[in-house]
Amino acid sequence: MNMHVSGYATQSAKDNLAPLCFERREPRVNDVVIEVLYCGVCHSDLHQARNDWNNSIYPMVPGHEIIGRVTSVGSKVTRFKPGDQVGVGCMVDSCQHCAACEQGLEQYCEDHHTLTYNDIDRHDRMPTFGGYSEKIVVSDKFVLKVPDGLDLAGAAPLLCAGITTWSPLRHWKIGKGSKVAVIGLGGLGHMGLKLAKAMGAEVTLFTRSPGKEQDARRLGADRIVLSTNEGQMGAVKGRFDLIIDTVPYVHDINPYLSTLSLNGTLVLVGYLGKLEPMLNTIPLIIGRKSVAGSVIGGIAETQEMLDFCGEHDITSDIEVIRIQDINEAYERMLKSDVKYRFVIDMASLKV
Amino acid sequence: MNMHVSGYATQSAKDNLAPLCFERREPRVNDVVIEVLYCGVCHSDLHQARNDWNNSIYPMVPGHEIIGRVTSVGSKVTRFKPGDQVGVGCMVDSCQHCAACEQGLEQYCEDHHTLTYNDIDRHDRMPTFGGYSEKIVVSDKFVLKVPDGLDLAGAAPLLCAGITTWSPLRHWKIGKGSKVAVIGLGGLGHMGLKLAKAMGAEVTLFTRSPGKEQDARRLGADRIVLSTNEGQMGAVKGRFDLIIDTVPYVHDINPYLSTLSLNGTLVLVGYLGKLEPMLNTIPLIIGRKSVAGSVIGGIAETQEMLDFCGEHDITSDIEVIRIQDINEAYERMLKSDVKYRFVIDMASLKV
Repeated sequence: MNMHVSGYATQSAKDNLAPLCFERREPRVNDVVIEVLYCGVCHSDLHQARNDWNNSIYPMVPGHEIIGRVTSVGSKVTRFKPGDQVGVGCMVDSCQHCAACEQGLEQYCEDHHTLTYNDIDRHDRMPTFGGYSEKIVVSDKFVLKVPDGLDLAGAAPLLCAGITTWSPLRHWKIGKGSKVAVIGLGGLGHMGLKLAKAMGAEVTLFTRSPGKEQDARRLGADRIVLSTNEGQMGAVKGRFDLIIDTVPYVHDINPYLSTLSLNGTLVLVGYLGKLEPMLNTIPLIIGRKSVAGSVIGGIAETQEMLDFCGEHDITSDIEVIRIQDINEAYERMLKSDVKYRFVIDMASLKV
Repeated sequence: MNMHVSGYATQSAKDNLAPLCFERREPRVNDVVIEVLYCGVCHSDLHQARNDWNNSIYPMVPGHEIIGRVTSVGSKVTRFKPGDQVGVGCMVDSCQHCAACEQGLEQYCEDHHTLTYNDIDRHDRMPTFGGYSEKIVVSDKFVLKVPDGLDLAGAAPLLCAGITTWSPLRHWKIGKGSKVAVIGLGGLGHMGLKLAKAMGAEVTLFTRSPGKEQDARRLGADRIVLSTNEGQMGAVKGRFDLIIDTVPYVHDINPYLSTLSLNGTLVLVGYLGKLEPMLNTIPLIIGRKSVAGSVIGGIAETQEMLDFCGEHDITSDIEVIRIQDINEAYERMLKSDVKYRFVIDMASLKV
């Protein structure tokens, strides 16, 4: 029998989020039922709630940075038991047999990974609903273990902002002595600084805004470069092995290419669209540099990242809100007025 | 005492090439003096002769695909002796101590490699002159050994067209079972097909021109895809580990990105300038794909490539011309009327 669950949803691109009682599937034999304790608020929640990408399904319950506690498990679930602290990120399913899935790269599933919300379950064709809700039902393969000792609210953004920066850092083999730069100090950027630093890299923040120096240093930056300052940009010419570009809107990446080292890569993780102004190939060719993209991370590497964060006591810098304040939080997020992630305390749903 | 050498030169962007007697340096202790036997005609010879890149120095003696025979060596030269068959490519010097040079990647020298022509020698500040001449004087570190048995005229284009496609094939670890595509069937493209095939890859040619099928198959292509045909493009979606884009003018690379596999790379080796229409980041992000650039190759890998070509009997498909026909050859090259490289028989200079 389907479960009746309460949460917050939007009914159209123009509505605010408001309370909704909705149905989740009757748990399957490999499902884990999770009481949601905390849910991070990602910029993409707002994009999808407002149909900015023209692919929204309503009603929509957003939320894909989920921390919770297992309340029950299906008969075939062996890795989890009631009471376990767990996490759920941006995906809840994938085909499980394509070349990407077989490498543990479900985020690149050739048959598309199933999004945690705003998607359709591939087995029962029911819509998926996210973490702004009291409970969620997820296939065990897409449930992560959250290490003991991590602050649970601060851990929620690891499931999206954390893994989105972790995956390129690992794929491009960042470690001790690597030189890494992060463009933009937001939800993704601040996690990029923390993770790269903990991996042993020398870490630089590129920002357009003066006044972020103190915060950036606290978060792990060894150096701050004002990207609007030619002298500062010139001083890091040819320096970086990897630049993680977290900027979520159209921007000129050409000035950053000259700061890449030979064989260096600029990886876009925030901006989906056309590169304007046009990308100049000359710096790529005369330094064998690359412009690449990356999206979230696979389940195995998400677990690896959570375990790493447990060992290094890394969580996100957050502002905890009540679910009733979500619409105001969206407005503040639009103005970048958050350091550095809102996290909803889902206990507020019961008030 | 400087040497007096005859060759063909242009005196300005608007002049044709014509006979010129010019000076080369008195050989230094580490120099090799080479009688030029054959010199390939690269598209960039024409660009530089006509000052298309706004950096030309006149008079200019073009030519950087040089095959010759050693006539004398300096007192400190041990690797070469008179009579040896040798080659000289696009560079004749570099700083020799930067991080790139220390890795054998002189083409990415931080202090700029010295071009074989249209450049200034870093020691004596004399202009450099290329291979459209009877002799050339080159530092031993930039002289390559040409394996016995290779057709010498056909080997000349290996020094630029060959190494320019070899270097990315090696850097991106192409081997047996790899899936490689080459965009464009010209001097570079036809070498890309031959080399990728000999490395054991499955090889595809992208072309806009029907009618190249037979030639492409002979050169090593397993498949020909008309890039203007949506059905053919769709049939290779997600297929290639590496695409070598040899097109030397502005063109839309977006359609090719969808034919890259997960983690695949499109490497630009022909076009220097802005990517128009604008590059779309979405295919990069949803498949962790890269757009990269690459220029010629280091001296060690050029020797490796020549040795590989010796073992596999690979040379360029050429049309041998007399130096007196060089201006007509330039006009034909502009119309892509060459299969696939002009090579000057420098014996014609003595006629």
